[in-house]
Amino acid sequence: MAIEDVTTRLRNPEAAQTVIAILQQRFADKVQTGEAFRAQHAHTTTYLPAQLPDAVFFAESAEDVKAVVKACAAHKVPVIPFGTGSSLEGQVNAPEGGISIDFSRMNRVLAVNAEDLDCTVEPGITREELNAYLRDTGLFFPIDPGANASIGGMASTRASGTNAVRYGTMKDVVLAVTAVTADGEEITTASRARKSSAGYDLTRLFVGAEGTLGVITSVTLKLAGIPEKIAGGVSSFATLEDACNAVIMTIQMGIPVARIELLDALQVKACNAYSGLDFPETPLLLLEFHGSEQAVAMQSEQFAEIAAECGGSEFVWTANAEERNRLWKARHNAYWAGRALKPDYEGFSTDVCVPISRLADCVRETQADIAAEGILAPVVGHAGDGNFHLLVLFDKDKPGEIEKIEAFTVRLAERAIAMGGTSTGEHGVGQGKKRVVGKELGSAVAMMRAIKQALDPDNIFNPGKIF
Amino acid sequence: MAIEDVTTRLRNPEAAQTVIAILQQRFADKVQTGEAFRAQHAHTTTYLPAQLPDAVFFAESAEDVKAVVKACAAHKVPVIPFGTGSSLEGQVNAPEGGISIDFSRMNRVLAVNAEDLDCTVEPGITREELNAYLRDTGLFFPIDPGANASIGGMASTRASGTNAVRYGTMKDVVLAVTAVTADGEEITTASRARKSSAGYDLTRLFVGAEGTLGVITSVTLKLAGIPEKIAGGVSSFATLEDACNAVIMTIQMGIPVARIELLDALQVKACNAYSGLDFPETPLLLLEFHGSEQAVAMQSEQFAEIAAECGGSEFVWTANAEERNRLWKARHNAYWAGRALKPDYEGFSTDVCVPISRLADCVRETQADIAAEGILAPVVGHAGDGNFHLLVLFDKDKPGEIEKIEAFTVRLAERAIAMGGTSTGEHGVGQGKKRVVGKELGSAVAMMRAIKQALDPDNIFNPGKIF
Repeated sequence: MAIEDVTTRLRNPEAAQTVIAILQQRFADKVQTGEAFRAQHAHTTTYLPAQLPDAVFFAESAEDVKAVVKACAAHKVPVIPFGTGSSLEGQVNAPEGGISIDFSRMNRVLAVNAEDLDCTVEPGITREELNAYLRDTGLFFPIDPGANASIGGMASTRASGTNAVRYGTMKDVVLAVTAVTADGEEITTASRARKSSAGYDLTRLFVGAEGTLGVITSVTLKLAGIPEKIAGGVSSFATLEDACNAVIMTIQMGIPVARIELLDALQVKACNAYSGLDFPETPLLLLEFHGSEQAVAMQSEQFAEIAAECGGSEFVWTANAEERNRLWKARHNAYWAGRALKPDYEGFSTDVCVPISRLADCVRETQADIAAEGILAPVVGHAGDGNFHLLVLFDKDKPGEIEKIEAFTVRLAERAIAMGGTSTGEHGVGQGKKRVVGKELGSAVAMMRAIKQALDPDNIFNPGKIF
Repeated sequence: MAIEDVTTRLRNPEAAQTVIAILQQRFADKVQTGEAFRAQHAHTTTYLPAQLPDAVFFAESAEDVKAVVKACAAHKVPVIPFGTGSSLEGQVNAPEGGISIDFSRMNRVLAVNAEDLDCTVEPGITREELNAYLRDTGLFFPIDPGANASIGGMASTRASGTNAVRYGTMKDVVLAVTAVTADGEEITTASRARKSSAGYDLTRLFVGAEGTLGVITSVTLKLAGIPEKIAGGVSSFATLEDACNAVIMTIQMGIPVARIELLDALQVKACNAYSGLDFPETPLLLLEFHGSEQAVAMQSEQFAEIAAECGGSEFVWTANAEERNRLWKARHNAYWAGRALKPDYEGFSTDVCVPISRLADCVRETQADIAAEGILAPVVGHAGDGNFHLLVLFDKDKPGEIEKIEAFTVRLAERAIAMGGTSTGEHGVGQGKKRVVGKELGSAVAMMRAIKQALDPDNIFNPGKIF
């Protein structure tokens, strides 16, 4: 991991030290300045260099967060919220230094309202911790981005994942947040009501703001009932078009599929090699259905007919958990299988999202670009949403390699935008997609900037992200 | 309808005349200043007095809207977007005069992407016009607020209605909008992708902003597949608690009910009298299920078991359209049945929304308040969301009556807020709920004001609403 010296970028190098001294006096060892702590709280998941904060603050309460924000606001020092560090576009980097607020100690469940299918949690709780807590209630938190991310981080990057096609994204499941704003006070964006027309949708403004408008201190979430049965299955297709047609028909018919994942031929090849599988090395769809025994059987049979109509292989499905895990093994190990294609290379993940009618086109044109550039990048897609990921494998020591893949990701984003899609379906802008967000949204970015300026005039909240 | 003279409130009485002259020169009779036009474009649906705009502009294109906004911005004259005028909290009133932009001529469907289940429309199209247009595609626009409202108006008030429990609200189905901002230019808030993490959620910021941040010029909507079958049924319950328990169990079990409506005893009585029905005059639930023949039968049977368990009457259901309409007659005629309780009174509709665990409490306490005050106000609820409406019947000529019902609606909102709910589930703030939005959201309102100030510094967009 390359560490970039950010001291020259600090707006006021002494200010951070002043804030650290103030916080140390009041909070003692909740404040850590050792390089190991700071390096751990910088960006570590891609080719972007790590930019370390000046200190890490381990918050234990909303009062702690208010104190940090007040001290930072008084001295115009950046505040960078940190969940688990699993964001993928440099969201936790500190390009201008500042205080990283670590939320791992703010991981309590504050309330579960089982009758209302909602709960309120502190932002540092991870989705797996939350689901372990909920197990006895018959409810679960359905959003699954892969990583065991924190709820605050997932809200801030508008995360989603494999089952968004059924359960939505963080924009759909967050009912309200509390957040500390630039004046160091806490606001509550909404009530626990399922719906409201009471003024501007501040909840949705914080969801996806990547910590640039304030620091989230609690999140109220919709929950779902744990399905009585889960069925899963797989079907291979000769072409991307065939696979995507099956996805389109599934969505059009309103089959409430819980997951519908696409692996391209290279990813299938990688999975076969890594997990000892023997799928045809052509596009593969993996599906999951949630519901009563009768419902998942009905849905699986409906999809089997669609697969047959679209020229897919026989749809092999099961409601037996062990069998299902075996069928889904290719998807579960996709990341490590991809990495194993070139064990000595680095890998980073990028995503775009297009209307599903363009998914096959976008993947195919991207594969052609990959081939032309001599890049290795298997594709895994949340096909029901038109969202797909590339695991780009690269040799970080080879001159020109970073520039090549950066140019490739810009072309990828431009291709998605030209097809009516977005430069990022679920990873966010962070630092990595700043160069393309203007291509996608044009002058709407000026409106975002005006909001940022109005709510955070000194730009203390996670500077250098989105804009 | 009382018409309030607003001339004394104008910030600059000559400015509006200047703008009208500019627009008349360029647009001739797209500009109308006659009192009949102006009165028709003021608020007409409640006890709030009508406040007329200075002129009505019949926009035919986004270019027209840009021209009006530019002229108004240059002279700091208010701009009030007008769809069909069916909003319920005074959203289209012109308390400071200004130009009402009528969207009835901007009612084209700009694109339908059937494979992607989306379409883009001009804001003036009504939901019934859109559904008539879509009929041959096998798709429909599912949000149904009762009135044949315009899509732009529905987006602006974050409308929902009877089937929000299944299909969501406008916040869930709007993929993107284009809007003319205070500089007279048009922005696009998002792409057609199903999901995106590209920066702030400006789409959701415009949805529910009631025209206070800009003027929507097109809306891109998610559509749903027309269900193969629709089943409907009814069940009576001895108490509100029993009925609400049945609702809670239905939601908890994840039965994908399309509509689940609650009528209180007074509303049932009104419906019996109005439509010649003979339901027991106790709380009534009406349900609708959408899906395959097999699915709606399964869901109806599941609900029948729940109703039995909660002490409801036998759940009578059918998948025959004529029979279903007969069963649902009470709901379809609920408004006019309510009005018929006191044909010589005025009626206005108010709504709140609470977590469903508190729905029975909130309705019961509200009924007690109604009884104590001697008000007549039947209840109809979108029970699956915890949202309910009161049709408040009042004698507008009786001294003190308006003050009494205003105080009653404030208590209603406070009651909902105290139960973890919202002062308005779907009607919006407009003028009518301004007095309670601060009670609900506290200092979050200051953040809304800061956004308003940043995006519309001269307060030209629908002034006097929300704040």
